[in-house]
Formats: sequence, C-alpha cells, structure tokens
Amino acid sequence: MSGSTRGQLFRVTNFGESHGPAIGCVIDGCPPGLPLQESDIQPDLDRRRPGTSRHVTQRQEEDRVEILSGVFEGKTTGTPIALLIRNADARSRDYDNLLDTFRPGHADYTYWRKYGVRDPRGGGRSSARLTAPTVAAAAIARKWLHMHHGVEVLGWMSALGEIAIPTEDEGHIAHNPFFVPNASIVPRLEAYMDALRKAGDSCGARIEVRARGVPPGWGEPLFDKLDADIAHAMMGLNAVKGVEIGDGFAVVDQRGSTHGDELTPNGFASNHAGGILGGISTGQELRVSLAIKPTSSIRLPKQSIDRQVQTQTVQTLGRHDPCVGIRATPIAEALLLLVLMDHALRHRAQCADVQHSQPPIAPRLPEGS
Amino acid sequence: MSGSTRGQLFRVTNFGESHGPAIGCVIDGCPPGLPLQESDIQPDLDRRRPGTSRHVTQRQEEDRVEILSGVFEGKTTGTPIALLIRNADARSRDYDNLLDTFRPGHADYTYWRKYGVRDPRGGGRSSARLTAPTVAAAAIARKWLHMHHGVEVLGWMSALGEIAIPTEDEGHIAHNPFFVPNASIVPRLEAYMDALRKAGDSCGARIEVRARGVPPGWGEPLFDKLDADIAHAMMGLNAVKGVEIGDGFAVVDQRGSTHGDELTPNGFASNHAGGILGGISTGQELRVSLAIKPTSSIRLPKQSIDRQVQTQTVQTLGRHDPCVGIRATPIAEALLLLVLMDHALRHRAQCADVQHSQPPIAPRLPEGS
Amino acid sequence: MSGSTRGQLFRVTNFGESHGPAIGCVIDGCPPGLPLQESDIQPDLDRRRPGTSRHVTQRQEEDRVEILSGVFEGKTTGTPIALLIRNADARSRDYDNLLDTFRPGHADYTYWRKYGVRDPRGGGRSSARLTAPTVAAAAIARKWLHMHHGVEVLGWMSALGEIAIPTEDEGHIAHNPFFVPNASIVPRLEAYMDALRKAGDSCGARIEVRARGVPPGWGEPLFDKLDADIAHAMMGLNAVKGVEIGDGFAVVDQRGSTHGDELTPNGFASNHAGGILGGISTGQELRVSLAIKPTSSIRLPKQSIDRQVQTQTVQTLGRHDPCVGIRATPIAEALLLLVLMDHALRHRAQCADVQHSQPPIAPRLPEGS
Amino acid sequence: MSGSTRGQLFRVTNFGESHGPAIGCVIDGCPPGLPLQESDIQPDLDRRRPGTSRHVTQRQEEDRVEILSGVFEGKTTGTPIALLIRNADARSRDYDNLLDTFRPGHADYTYWRKYGVRDPRGGGRSSARLTAPTVAAAAIARKWLHMHHGVEVLGWMSALGEIAIPTEDEGHIAHNPFFVPNASIVPRLEAYMDALRKAGDSCGARIEVRARGVPPGWGEPLFDKLDADIAHAMMGLNAVKGVEIGDGFAVVDQRGSTHGDELTPNGFASNHAGGILGGISTGQELRVSLAIKPTSSIRLPKQSIDRQVQTQTVQTLGRHDPCVGIRATPIAEALLLLVLMDHALRHRAQCADVQHSQPPIAPRLPEGS
Repeated sequence: MSGSTRGQLFRVTNFGESHGPAIGCVIDGCPPGLPLQESDIQPDLDRRRPGTSRHVTQRQEEDRVEILSGVFEGKTTGTPIALLIRNADARSRDYDNLLDTFRPGHADYTYWRKYGVRDPRGGGRSSARLTAPTVAAAAIARKWLHMHHGVEVLGWMSALGEIAIPTEDEGHIAHNPFFVPNASIVPRLEAYMDALRKAGDSCGARIEVRARGVPPGWGEPLFDKLDADIAHAMMGLNAVKGVEIGDGFAVVDQRGSTHGDELTPNGFASNHAGGILGGISTGQELRVSLAIKPTSSIRLPKQSIDRQVQTQTVQTLGRHDPCVGIRATPIAEALLLLVLMDHALRHRAQCADVQHSQPPIAPRLPEGS
Repeated sequence: MSGSTRGQLFRVTNFGESHGPAIGCVIDGCPPGLPLQESDIQPDLDRRRPGTSRHVTQRQEEDRVEILSGVFEGKTTGTPIALLIRNADARSRDYDNLLDTFRPGHADYTYWRKYGVRDPRGGGRSSARLTAPTVAAAAIARKWLHMHHGVEVLGWMSALGEIAIPTEDEGHIAHNPFFVPNASIVPRLEAYMDALRKAGDSCGARIEVRARGVPPGWGEPLFDKLDADIAHAMMGLNAVKGVEIGDGFAVVDQRGSTHGDELTPNGFASNHAGGILGGISTGQELRVSLAIKPTSSIRLPKQSIDRQVQTQTVQTLGRHDPCVGIRATPIAEALLLLVLMDHALRHRAQCADVQHSQPPIAPRLPEGS
Repeated sequence: MSGSTRGQLFRVTNFGESHGPAIGCVIDGCPPGLPLQESDIQPDLDRRRPGTSRHVTQRQEEDRVEILSGVFEGKTTGTPIALLIRNADARSRDYDNLLDTFRPGHADYTYWRKYGVRDPRGGGRSSARLTAPTVAAAAIARKWLHMHHGVEVLGWMSALGEIAIPTEDEGHIAHNPFFVPNASIVPRLEAYMDALRKAGDSCGARIEVRARGVPPGWGEPLFDKLDADIAHAMMGLNAVKGVEIGDGFAVVDQRGSTHGDELTPNGFASNHAGGILGGISTGQELRVSLAIKPTSSIRLPKQSIDRQVQTQTVQTLGRHDPCVGIRATPIAEALLLLVLMDHALRHRAQCADVQHSQPPIAPRLPEGS
Repeated sequence: MSGSTRGQLFRVTNFGESHGPAIGCVIDGCPPGLPLQESDIQPDLDRRRPGTSRHVTQRQEEDRVEILSGVFEGKTTGTPIALLIRNADARSRDYDNLLDTFRPGHADYTYWRKYGVRDPRGGGRSSARLTAPTVAAAAIARKWLHMHHGVEVLGWMSALGEIAIPTEDEGHIAHNPFFVPNASIVPRLEAYMDALRKAGDSCGARIEVRARGVPPGWGEPLFDKLDADIAHAMMGLNAVKGVEIGDGFAVVDQRGSTHGDELTPNGFASNHAGGILGGISTGQELRVSLAIKPTSSIRLPKQSIDRQVQTQTVQTLGRHDPCVGIRATPIAEALLLLVLMDHALRHRAQCADVQHSQPPIAPRLPEGS
C-alpha cells in the first residue's frame, strides 16, 4: 500500500536507502523448482552497476547479491527469496551542504513535505540505487520466462540528448557503455558526454525495450491491462517522464485505415499496436519507449530554498550520473520482465483451462510475403 | 487480480459489457458523510454520453445512473456505493457479420485467445462503453477532493489528427462537442470530422489533463509513485498509446540546468516536472498528456482472419466513434480524479501525523515576479 | 481495503443494505468457459432464504438473482459476473423506535462510532441479509470446484442451544428446517424453538462444515494458510464467536503421540488435523466448526443508551431470527467454498508446474484396515 | 498473494527458513517520525527466544535484530523497515534421518506435495522460528499504538495440557517461563513438563490475549471485520487449531437476553462480545483465546511413509519444544498488535473526518456501580 511492492503474484518488495547499510528485496510467489544461484543474478546487476565507465557515477559498488532464503540445493522452493546487497561506498559527507537545501528537480522537497523527514544522504530512498534490487529480482523472472515461454527482453538507448541513435546491430548493445545498437556512433556519444560533464550539466535520453516470444493472452482488463502495468512500471522508474507503447504519440496523426494491424493466416502484417490490443498481448513483439529527464543533481548553480524557506544557491558535488539514461537500459528491461512474469502467473491462474483448436498466428508475416 | 478493480483505498470495481443488460461499478472505501445523490453524478456522465453530436457514435443511451447502496438520507455511509446503468440501445444484430472475424487493431482477437470466448456484441467487455461507470465513480471523487482539498481537474483536446489546437480560453471547453479550449477552431474541426466520416475512416487525438490544488505529499514511492499510478490509469484507457507527465518526451533534448524547476520563497519558478518529483506531488499543477489512437472499427475494408484462420475482409458497420478522442476528455479527467482520491486516502493513512512549521511553497511565482 | 471484497484471485465484492433497493456482488476472476445460468445459483440462495419455516424471520424475500454480466451464451466469459438481488419486503417502519437507540449486542453502536452515521433500517449493512450475495457467489465456486476437482462441501447444525445433535444420517440434512443430520431429533428442536420464540428470547448454535475431495497442496504459508483464511471467512460471518479446525479446542488436552495423524501407503490413519498441516491441505476431509451467538435483536427488554447518551430500554419488534444459527449452515458452506476456490486458483498460479511421480495418499485408510 | 505478507497498510513481508543463513521481514507503511532503534525491538524478541529454560527447545539463538533501512537519526522515515536476524545455531545434521520421511502431524508432507520440494532442515519455512520476524515487526506496532492510542496488549497461558491455570496476578506473567499469571502453579507446571519431556511426548496449551485501550471504530466490514482479521492472524500461527473471541464457544449455550452487553451512560455492563460488535471494536477490552496443538516433532515412534511411499517409523531427534504453547504467548501478542496497527491506519484512511459530539462510552461500569 505504501508502494514498495510491485506485482500481484510475483511480488517484489524493495527496501533500503542509498547510504544505509544495505538494500535488497523479497520476492514472494516465485514458482518452485527453478534452478537458481547468485551467478544467475549477478550478470544483470553488473550491467547496471555504477563506476563502469567515465560516463556514469564514480561511486564504487560491487553490488554483490546474497540469496538469504527461498533456495534449497540450487532450486527455488516456492517460499520468499530474499536478496541482500550491502552498500559499500557511501560517502555521506558529500551531502553535508545539502542537509537543509532542496535540489531543484529532485525529490528532496517532496519527501520532506510527505514524511516530515529529510534524509539527504545520496537521496535516501529516492536514489536510483534502489533500482539494483529490482534488476536482481528481474533476473529471476528473466530465467523463468525464458525457460517456460522462450521470452526474450532486450533494451537499448535510441537517443542521447539531441542525438538520435539509429539501430544498426542489436548485437553491439552489449559491447559499449551506452547500450546503443550502433558501433559507429559511440565516439560521438563519448565526446558529447565528456563535454557535458565538463560543463557540469546533464542531459536526457530515450530508451527502447522489446519483449519477444510473449504468447497471446497476457494482460488483465479492465484496469490492469498489460500496457497499463507496463506504463506503471516504467513511469515509476526514476526520471521517466513519458511512456509509449507501439507507435506511441505518432498515433495522433494516423488514420485507422493505416494503424490497425491486419491479420493473415501467416502472421500479422504490421505492428503499430506494439504487441498489445485491448490490454492483452497479441503474440507480437512488445514495443515500449521511455523518455528520461536530465539528472537534477548537477554542478551548475541553481536557485532554491532551505527548510527555513530561505533562498539558497545549490550546486551538487556528490557523485552522480550526468545522464541517468545511460544506466537505464538494464533497469527498463528489468521492469518489463517483472510485469511479464506477474502477468504470466495471473493469466494461468484464471485461464489455465482455456483450449484452442488453432495455434496463435505468427507475430509477423514471413519476409518477402 | 483479474483487473476490474482500481485503487487501493478508494476501490472501484467495474462490471458489464457493451450489450449486456447493464453496466456499473461498486465503490468501496468512500469516506462517510459526503452529501451525495444521483444529480451529483449525472452531469459528468452526460459529458461522456454517446449520441450528443454528429461527430460521435449515434448509439442512444441516456446513461441514467441509479445508486443502489451506500447512501442514506443523502449522505454516504462509508459502505459500498453500487452504481447501476442499464443498457438501452444495444443493437447486437449490427455485429452478426463479425461473429467469427477479428477486426484489425481491435481487442477481438486477444480476448478470444485469452478467454477462449468470442463476444462480438459491441466489443463486449473491451468496449469504451465501460468507461461510463468509471466516470460515474470519479464524480464522487471529484466532489470529495474539491470539498476537502479544493482540487480541480480539467481536461481538453489539444490535437485532433494532424490539427494542433492551441489553448485560447479554458472557459470554452464546456461549450463545444470537442472539448477544445478554443472557439475559433471549432468549424475547422467539424469540417475535418465530416470529411473523415464520409471517408469511412478514423483519426487519433491528443488530450491534456490538469489537476490544480493538489497538496504536496501525495504519491507512494517506490513503485506506486503518483506519476506511475497516473500512467497506469491513463494507459489503461481504451486506445491510449502514450502518456506524458510534465514536459514528457521533450525532456530527452533538455539540459538539467534548464529542466530542474527552481524553488523560491514565493513559489516555484517553472513547472517542467508537471507537479511530481520522486513520485510525490509538489503542490504544483499536475500536467498529463495522452495520445489516442484512431478507432479500429471503420467502414473501410481491411484484411483479417476468422476463427478458422481463413482470410476475411472486414468492414465495421456498427455505430462507432470516428475519433474516440472526442469523448476521451471527461474519461481522462475521471481517471486522474480516481488516482488522486486514492492517494489522498493513502497519504493520510500513513502520514496523518506529519506536521510542518512552514506552509508549502506556492505552485508558481506570482505574475511579474 | 474497506473490507467488502474477499478473495485474492476469485474476488467477490459485496454491496447493499438490508433495506436499500438491492443487494448483490461482483465476482472478478472466475475462470472462463464455465456453464452458468441463474438456475445454478438459485438453489443455494433458496436454502438460506428467510420465511421458509416458522423458526426463522418471517420477512418474505424471493431472493431472485439476476446475472447482469460476465456470462455469454450460457458460459462465463472470464469478465466480472455481477449478481443483483432486489430487496422486496423491507418494512423499515418496524425500526422507527430504534432510530436513536443502540441494541445491546448489536452493531448499531459500533457502526455509528466508526462512520458517524446511523442507518437503523434492519441493521443496514450489518444485517445477515448481506450473506445472500455471498451464497450466490459461492454457488459458482461450488460448480467449478466440483467440475474440476470433485470437491464437495457440506454443512450441518451440531448443537442448538444446549441440545447437542448427533449425526445419524447426512442424507437427512436437506429435509428439515434446521439442517440437522438427524431425523428423530427434529420434533425436540421444534418444541425448543417454539418455547424460545414465545419467551421472546434467542439462542446460540454450533455448525459443522466439511469439504471432501480437496487435493493436497492448497493454502499459502506463511500468513495466508488455508486454515487462517477459513478462520477469517468464518469469523467474519455475523454472530460467529469461535472457529475450530480439526480437533479444535480439544487439542489442548491431547498428547503429540495421539494427535499426529499417521501416514500409511494406503491412507491416513486418522484426521485430528482436520485436513490441514502447516496451512496446506493434506488431501483429507476439511473439518471446520463454528460457534454462533444468540441473536441480539430480541423482544425481551434490555437496558441501553441513545445517541444523546440517555438511558433507554430496548425491545426489538422487527422480524428476526430467534436463532441465526438455523440459517447459518448454507452460509458457512458458501464461505468455505469461496476460500477453496480462491486457493485453487492461487495454487495453480504459482505451482502449476509441480510434478510428482507418486499420487497423493488416500484421505483415509480403507474400512477395516 | 503467496501469503508471506500480512496487513494492508502496515504490511509485514516475512522471509527465511529455520536453517538458512537468515530470517527477517520488511515492514512497509510504518508512519514516519516514530522514534525507533534496535533496543525497542529486542525485548519482545527475547521473550520468545529459544533456549531460555529447560522447558523449551535448547537451540541457542541470540536473535539479534539488525535494522537495515527505514530509520534515520533514530526515527522512522516512512520508508520500508527491513529487519534481519542471522541464524546461528542451525544443526542441520539432526535432520538427516528425516530427509525422506514425513513426520505425522507435521507440514513435511504438505509442503512436499505443494511445492515438489523437501527441505527437511528444521522444518524449513514451516518452522515456528519464522515467528521471530513477526514478533520483531510487532514491537514497532506496539510502540506506535501505545504512543498514539494508549493501547496495551498482554497475553498469558491459561491451560497447559489438562492443567487449567486460573489468573491470580497479571504482574506475575513476566516472571516465569510459562507466561502464566499465577505464581503458585509454576512448580506444578515444571513437574508436568519434566515428565512429558522424559516421556518423549508433547502437549497442547491454551493462550489468552487481551488488548486494552482500543478505541471504538476499528475494523472493516463486511469481510475484513476486526474479529475476522484476528482469527486469520491467530489461526495462521503454527499449531493453532481454534480461536475464540469474547465468550467463544460458550455462546452456543447462551440466551440473547444474557449475552447482549448492556450499554449505560457510565459504561458497558458486561463484555460477552469480547470488545467487537459487527466486526468493529466497541472500545471494550479485546478478548481472544487460542488452542495450541501438541508439537508433532516427538521422540516417541510413529508410523509414517517416505517419498517412495514406503512405510517408515519416525522419531524426531532434533531440538524441539515439547509444548510450543509455552513460547506462543509473545507471538500471539505480536499477531494481535499487527492486526490492530493495520486497522488503526485503515480506519483513519477512510474515517479520519468523522466527528462525534459525545465521547465514546467507557469500556466498563465503574466498580460497585
């Protein structure tokens, strides 16, 4: 109810603060019998870890995950899986000058008004550090979804500030610090980030996420449509200000005669819908886009106030990402995985007995048809 | 769990189908003592009613709401409020030719794959008709939020297909069939819709919603951020493919030095954030935008398949909105109201004791400062 | 959250008051494809209907149920099933003298303190009349559980006031107004009730409920154990003051060496546990007992106060059951059915893939073994 | 959904196994600003700790609690409070002989059927060890309820096996290993337990819990009545087979003329109801009783089967409580505290605005009136 749990059947309860002793989560509802060990989780955590390039925060965190429960002899038991990540490099003194002052564009002010408490250490609970347990939990979902349904989830950055990034090769995503599907553009992105960092400023980004292999039928109308839950998950990610499914805002200018994806015996003819109709998956690729705002913690001075409502000038000297979008890709994947995992279980709870004499139609027409 | 309830504390459970005997909802958790009668609800229902202009579906429904419970001697009792709306003008024969065929871009196919059932009468449960109970429930939220917090929620259409609609006068919204804040553009919109209808096609739209008077502190991090719940609500509305908060997708190109809204003792200096930081309301105006796709039910023929996976040509002859965006404004308002009402109660459940020695800062700097 | 919904996956949301226009419920999460019509529901409703003998309230209600949604061409669609029962015989004038005074042992006082509202008409929301929609919803669960798992749920009265009622023949339960499994004791029960009614007093009762055919594995530790959820359901029934599973309070005096039910390859050797171990069903018969308090609405005068905290004498003249336990049997069955239905779906959501090479052991050893 | 979370607004998510590396819980929804440190929690944990007398299991666990999050500068922040307790003395080898065999009366068999997994180490998740995090979480509820409402919760043992224990002095409860309100009976209880332990057997117990100072108005009809939620919590405690509120099963023999508690301007005249009417607290003392079954893990041999459905004889050699009821008192208190805390928040969420011109009537008539 206080918002630290996501999912109805695959439930992830998150805890911790950026500069407390530890962060982590408890996953309740994981199907039993899934082979699981720390090494299944660590690779995804490593992808979102800070300090891996000069373009992200220099905070050094190993982000070693410890499985505290729910696994016996290498398999999930069906009982809660608690994951613990100790905070290592928490330099709280960096925040001494922020104790009383609210950073423009930051959650400092709203947390204080809501809770009457000011925890300035690295943003406390509002820090993007709290996405680490989400990524860890989603690694379990990723494994189950792949084993049971062949689902694959993949994300990338499609714009860094004003630089649009065309997709050239998805295979390249894993091989650059920006998660871009485009090798040739990397030097330009590095120069862009170097200039931004030197200027003490920050920039926005656009992220794409795709899920392939999702069967038709996942999603719960009326209110918990699959796209509604995806939007909930994505807009709940720090710094996200916009979410699109399929053609997104481009649909405003479209005609129904072109937008509606035709069905043929051999597959869908197009995918303007982004894999969801009426809140239920079609069997096509899920297409999701996010807009990430520029980080609010910047070195350039801004006007603000303190708790005594006195005017103050704010410069953030702590270690921060000049573009949180750079590390957002694995997190966006994680959120989509958690939504899909939850809906996989929700669907079979109600509809396990539904039978069809015909297989679902293919996601797409074969090439050249 | 099956998705027909929204809200955690102000819970609205929706039921019904487009062509069944009745639609309605049950609202559990409404505070007791609120003066309430049918006439508080009917005006909002009338705003989204079909058949009110030639630009929307010609289905004739009075949409008379009956309060079945939860009100005694003109006041809410704190027990569930059941609202019933009988369906009157359900011409199911219009759908005979659709019994077996799936409309491209429509939920026909996905409902069938999910549930193994094909209810072709007006889209069954996936029909936009099911937004009527949502609007009715939200009228109660509107009354409570205004009485207790002075909150005002207002929406309008900002684009119809490729026509952008500049805001000239919010006072005009109530006086045209398009909910546009602009009197002079109405003839152009009417001509546009007439041509579209003649062509048998449909178009998209863009809708804006604002909430004013929301106090700081509403919203539940980590996962149930206020913006996350708004995105969930809006993306769950039929035909919505994109949601933005504040500057939305424009943030991709912004710098942190311009995006972060400065705070002053006299008010916020700008509102790029759209009234939410860290998932919690700032006290500023909430700014939400939606992209609505073109209706999938059109007269122009499209290719599809039937339940036997045979190729079919589809033309939808039932009565439909050529732009569902035209009636989307009161529904988008309703969804925002339901989210706010729920978070008002959630906030006081946990934080009723929080006290501040200083009042919250003003939503905006005074004019000319 | 406000308590009018029960179940996590088979969710029943109840609405209405004793003397409002209608009562009913919305069931969300029913599996699709279940054959269903009003005639599947009416028999269970008729079993708990008032006015069927001189030993229960003389209020005349046909309790005709109308299915408003969720069924198409005689089968459930997977969307919400709304059930409506109009109130017919609501003689609110009977309650005029109660408008201001609180009946001892009744919810009058607590509802007023909680909600600040006093609805004296037949107890308003606290009336046992609100169990009718619960019984209606459970009729659907009964059908599904029987079709899919062969589950049978049966209840009876085992004590009426100080009269213990030995079980002689379960087949007799359906053939007397007391739901007792014992034909010869009926005249004594009738004389007992006649004397009680003449005295203007009321009495308590004890009810048994059994479920047979429940497979092993249903129930969700740690907190939502099957027995915990049964206790929740039963203690939530009007007038229940005690709940037992298996041997119940008799376990206090038992030894572990006798209590623990031995397992053999041919079946369990006993069933002290009542079919649940560690919160999970064993595959044995579920055994539940309830204590029902005497009705608080009696003709004998009692001391009380009114809303102005002035002393008053209360005599209840409305039509009431002198022993609510008489009609409690079908309601207790209904509650057990709803709990089982919910856990059937919850179990398969998480554990659908669990496989065993051995079948579960039999509920009991064969006779004579 | 998988049952490891209890509470709607004060939500406690439990994790861990008896012989895993750690147990603990995450509490979401705690009001901010509550002074809190480990020393507020440890005393309650120490009361239920094993190894404190020869009458309970000799497992040595310090049960040191670590607060991982949600507290800053000695006060709760409103964000999740994670509590961690490391397991120290886990002698898993004691269970080697149980790897394949199911203990009669134990959850071994049902966990295996449900999850397809056999974790024999100390009962894994079904162990009473998992009540430690519940007690820890409830210590926070205890502090808040006392500070904000003056609520006091107190429990004791009222029967050990066949020995009934009359209440002589509640002040003595804290000063004996049985939690009995009676100094003179302690030697008899010690002798009884010594004999039982020597015999290798176990016995049941009866526990009482009381809450004083609960204001009228807590509890959510229809389904989440205060007594329903108490029954849910208590029946969910390991080994509980019966729950009573107020007069409990004694009501079966009562008349309405004696059962209904009369109201006077100076207080209630009696408390047969146990402090709850219509599912809502009356302002009187809450009275709850539990029946605890004899431990299933005993040294005396019993017949059972193994996973290959072969007959086996079982003797449990691990360290176990010969009467789990001895340590049940602080746990039963904890469960009542968690239920009350949740309902305190639920009540104010919906009814914070309800006002009364008259104060509630007193829990009891003054002595001698």
